[in-house]
Amino acid sequence: MLSSMRNEAHGIGIVGAGQLARMTIQAASALGIDSVVLASGPDDAATQLAGRVLVGSPRDSGQLWALAARSEVLTFDHEHVDLELLATLERAGVAVRPGATTLSMGVDKALMRRTLAAAGIAVPAHALLDADPDRATAEAVAFGGTYGWPVVLKATRGGYDGRGVWPAANAAQVEVRCRRAAESGTTMLVENHVDIDVELAVLVARRPNGDLAVWPAVETTQVSGMCREVLLPGRVDAALEERARALGEQVAVAVGATGVLAIEMFSSGGALLVNELAARPHNSGHWTMDGSVTSQFENHVRAIFDWPLGDVAASAPAVASVNVLGSPDGGSPVARLRAALAVEGAHVHLYGKSPVPGRKLGHVTVCGTDLADVRDRAWRCAVALGTPVPSGLLVAP
Amino acid sequence: MLSSMRNEAHGIGIVGAGQLARMTIQAASALGIDSVVLASGPDDAATQLAGRVLVGSPRDSGQLWALAARSEVLTFDHEHVDLELLATLERAGVAVRPGATTLSMGVDKALMRRTLAAAGIAVPAHALLDADPDRATAEAVAFGGTYGWPVVLKATRGGYDGRGVWPAANAAQVEVRCRRAAESGTTMLVENHVDIDVELAVLVARRPNGDLAVWPAVETTQVSGMCREVLLPGRVDAALEERARALGEQVAVAVGATGVLAIEMFSSGGALLVNELAARPHNSGHWTMDGSVTSQFENHVRAIFDWPLGDVAASAPAVASVNVLGSPDGGSPVARLRAALAVEGAHVHLYGKSPVPGRKLGHVTVCGTDLADVRDRAWRCAVALGTPVPSGLLVAP
Repeated sequence: MLSSMRNEAHGIGIVGAGQLARMTIQAASALGIDSVVLASGPDDAATQLAGRVLVGSPRDSGQLWALAARSEVLTFDHEHVDLELLATLERAGVAVRPGATTLSMGVDKALMRRTLAAAGIAVPAHALLDADPDRATAEAVAFGGTYGWPVVLKATRGGYDGRGVWPAANAAQVEVRCRRAAESGTTMLVENHVDIDVELAVLVARRPNGDLAVWPAVETTQVSGMCREVLLPGRVDAALEERARALGEQVAVAVGATGVLAIEMFSSGGALLVNELAARPHNSGHWTMDGSVTSQFENHVRAIFDWPLGDVAASAPAVASVNVLGSPDGGSPVARLRAALAVEGAHVHLYGKSPVPGRKLGHVTVCGTDLADVRDRAWRCAVALGTPVPSGLLVAP
Repeated sequence: MLSSMRNEAHGIGIVGAGQLARMTIQAASALGIDSVVLASGPDDAATQLAGRVLVGSPRDSGQLWALAARSEVLTFDHEHVDLELLATLERAGVAVRPGATTLSMGVDKALMRRTLAAAGIAVPAHALLDADPDRATAEAVAFGGTYGWPVVLKATRGGYDGRGVWPAANAAQVEVRCRRAAESGTTMLVENHVDIDVELAVLVARRPNGDLAVWPAVETTQVSGMCREVLLPGRVDAALEERARALGEQVAVAVGATGVLAIEMFSSGGALLVNELAARPHNSGHWTMDGSVTSQFENHVRAIFDWPLGDVAASAPAVASVNVLGSPDGGSPVARLRAALAVEGAHVHLYGKSPVPGRKLGHVTVCGTDLADVRDRAWRCAVALGTPVPSGLLVAP
């Protein structure tokens, strides 16, 4: 990057510089829009593409103000933010999109559950636990007595990719977890265990003016809490898919979303329960880069500038997106591109991250007419890139 | 960009940093591949996205060696290169793709015509003119006597977007042009005026191992020598379209192409004549970014690394791509995005260039099922971005 001669306050300022920032920059650059990122380090995924790079903490007031001073609108790669500080920026007139109130739903699960329940939206049965481990244990055990065992304990903040989620089958397991939480200062929710038929994700893009667009609902497969594949269509009938989209829209309005909001849901016995929210582009929407007329990243950019949203129709009847995880041998997926690109129709997206075994390093999307076929090809490509195959998933050799 | 801690010799080195480099970087980054550009200045279109930027002349030996030292493979945004110098790099083992021999076909029209004619490929009747203006005038007048008037005089080197092409209706006009050419040291060809039914362009991606892929032939509309729109399908029947693709493949083999080669052709009375070559991604292939399974930029990257090429099928029955030109008022198209993005299905690509009236600043692609419809929408979007409408083109209000 070389931009000393340009106007300083232009384009998008992104808090964080991971793969979501990287793909947001790709979409913004196609529209001729520059980006500046606030990275945690010089090798973050987005630093190679960003027009300008600041290195520092997203909780550092000086760094955030510096980012705001260099951009027209502030948006996010992650939720590890200081909501108070962001609210201060908003009050000072900075365009923070999504705003602090919406972001707080992705930061604090308890607040999210409470807000959605108040809006009449179904969420898993849950209760916020006391900070004291004895009282928390008693509360969670009582909850198990009411709603049945096992229960699920969840950190209200900071969890992702399966971290911060602990099933507990009995009072003894609850107590162990409550004591550890107290030691680390972690606030927890207790929730009932939901018998999940299918996990769905719905992405909504919403403008400050209220206009919104809802992509088709997709099925996600989580292994050990980490998303491994995203399938369109999911194993739900058309009526349930339509209900999922309507629910996504309802949630977006309830939390006042601006930009892309990802809503993860459980389908359980015909009911839809909202599980997680992310107030930003999301792994469950990477398929849109190749499988939809407009990608989640482009519509996120359009939405935060309050510009008309693009068409969110799927561009093929069947789309499969599989995450590329670091190979057990620690090798780079880039070194395996020759083999991977031999898979017909595979759209490979690698994030430029250092190759740690099990780390999310990219994704592969294949579009076509037959779901089994596109899923097979996407997995073959991801495996060629070094992705370990989770047990329990059927993948062709 | 911040990359001091990375290995210096990796990724793609691009000679030039215009929009073709910018879109090549977008495609390379999706594959996790970094890029370094040799820019003419800090505000070139690709500098904002490039991981590393060198500023200097592509004819400067030191700069080219510096670029080669920082990348695995060298490729090109333009043809303003020193072929001798590139040949020296090749002999020293640098992966220069395409190589100097192929590049020379895009640099020197006379050599290109001669090479293609020797391979049995039809080109317009032509003759190389003497450097002496009196002799050149006599040669061109004799050529007109043989092939008929008007004739077309063309600079053998350095022309693009209509520059370096001069029709001449009679001996007096020939003489004026030959004297000017002699004054500026310009070598010229004389060619016969071709009665063009349709202008076609065929893009080929070819690997060093000889594998190649040929996108569907498209129709291009030139106004004052500048490409204004690209349409798929073109106004040719299926048999002629197939012949155009076969001819494109033949040319790619004849010139030993590596990477993307663009072949511009005239369809005239049922015959196909090769007019221009560009040994790089090309304006006539921008439609592939949204209208083909694999874009010309991704396949260029795949080809120069000798990796398997992606599917080049069109992803829609009708595709229209219209260039965005600088508005007469000098305003930036970015400032007009709000209106432009309201056009349904418009894929906008802006290059981050400063907005000079008439300058190519981006392109818009629309895909669909009806050519008249997608063309109408693409033009409406381009016009909303400030593009002046050329007279003679039918555009809906």
